[in-house]
Amino acid sequence: MTNWAEIDGEVKRWIQEAGALIRESFHHSLSIQSKSNPNDLVTNMDKETERFFIENIRTNYPAHAILGEEGQGDHVQSLNGIIWIIDPIDGTMNFVHQQRNFAISIGIYENGKGMLGYIYDIVHDELYHARHGEGAWMNDVPLEKLKPVPVKKAMIGISSTWLINNRHFDQNKLIALANEVRGTRSYGSAALELAYVASGRLSAYITMRNAPWDFAGGKIIVEEAGGVVSKLDGSDVNMLTINPLLASAPGLHEQIVTGYLK
Amino acid sequence: MTNWAEIDGEVKRWIQEAGALIRESFHHSLSIQSKSNPNDLVTNMDKETERFFIENIRTNYPAHAILGEEGQGDHVQSLNGIIWIIDPIDGTMNFVHQQRNFAISIGIYENGKGMLGYIYDIVHDELYHARHGEGAWMNDVPLEKLKPVPVKKAMIGISSTWLINNRHFDQNKLIALANEVRGTRSYGSAALELAYVASGRLSAYITMRNAPWDFAGGKIIVEEAGGVVSKLDGSDVNMLTINPLLASAPGLHEQIVTGYLK
Repeated sequence: MTNWAEIDGEVKRWIQEAGALIRESFHHSLSIQSKSNPNDLVTNMDKETERFFIENIRTNYPAHAILGEEGQGDHVQSLNGIIWIIDPIDGTMNFVHQQRNFAISIGIYENGKGMLGYIYDIVHDELYHARHGEGAWMNDVPLEKLKPVPVKKAMIGISSTWLINNRHFDQNKLIALANEVRGTRSYGSAALELAYVASGRLSAYITMRNAPWDFAGGKIIVEEAGGVVSKLDGSDVNMLTINPLLASAPGLHEQIVTGYLK
Repeated sequence: MTNWAEIDGEVKRWIQEAGALIRESFHHSLSIQSKSNPNDLVTNMDKETERFFIENIRTNYPAHAILGEEGQGDHVQSLNGIIWIIDPIDGTMNFVHQQRNFAISIGIYENGKGMLGYIYDIVHDELYHARHGEGAWMNDVPLEKLKPVPVKKAMIGISSTWLINNRHFDQNKLIALANEVRGTRSYGSAALELAYVASGRLSAYITMRNAPWDFAGGKIIVEEAGGVVSKLDGSDVNMLTINPLLASAPGLHEQIVTGYLK
């Protein structure tokens, strides 16, 4: 029998430790223009952070599989058993340019079911987490259950990429939605935008291309907060491939799917 | 002779005091869905905060004029003398929906010249400020002088509004730029986006409609950090009217104006 409470405690400790390592990696300057190659820095920190988690998981939970953005985990081909899906630094471009607005994202799935989810906004020290069937928290304060939001009062997270010519989705449908909502925002980190949906700071988040590590943690947190995560047509996401993604407050989700995306 | 150092000290104290009042106004809950009418709340806090500044200014500097977003200041028609240009809460929608990503913005001008600028990100406790000819700071740490950024490496702040059909500017020019840069972001607060340009977190910020109180503080801070603030065609902004605005790192500013916006 898997001791999920024990795993939850371990993950939280590892996330804090990884967060401290990433914070220490910052230059002690307000300038974003690092003197070393900023792309090297982020690559190193991405890989080092992923390795940190993988080593801890392998030592403590050798039977679990690991799917990580940096490819140092396993070659996962099925959702059988327990799988950790990890993005060591989600929002790489923000990490390089802003040294903020990025996050550690972890989702732990058992036979395809989301059991534990984590998104850690390192710089602002905000840890969002959820346990299957038990709810979602931000820094251990329970997130209030999301309430339905009408389209006209919605603030949605969407990259401008999807509103201008792109080969993934008819932008006119998204433009119609953007024209109807109260406002759009774009933060450049899927994990953070999912955390914002879970905490009601955004009413919805829409993207055309999300990898499992981008949304694995966030999906569990949004759902435990009462929201809905699906593909754009409302069908289930595939945890092993790239997905178009709609995460949303309840009610609004159906309105967006049937009113704008179909 | 105006004692600018004294004014600088006063403004900083008032900003901290106003920030504390705004922080206290938050509900002690993570939910964004306030039980009282959120639009009333923000209106009250906007007006109360503006009134707080106006009372302090009138008491201490009765000869100065005040231009405030909420209209409780003076009916300013010329830039003669010393004018305080104030947005008590820039990013109202964020204040209501997110209780973050908003700021107090203040610019103090003498005969049209920016002398002191302030942007206070209350929730993250980050105070950006600048003094004419002396430089710009974030929490009293000097901001590094901005360096030129090539278009291909630029991260620009721009609302999706300006990339889809709008009656203010040919969106195809902006789409061409958005397709060329490294990424776009949208935070929903002109003041914060200007602070991000000043600190290098964004390479540029573009908007079609900015009122003087939206950019009065940010303009001084961006310029003292080595950046450029102008209308989209590169000409000077008008401190008494709505302006289309381009704030940018040096070099990049000219590339955007001549390569995309003309």
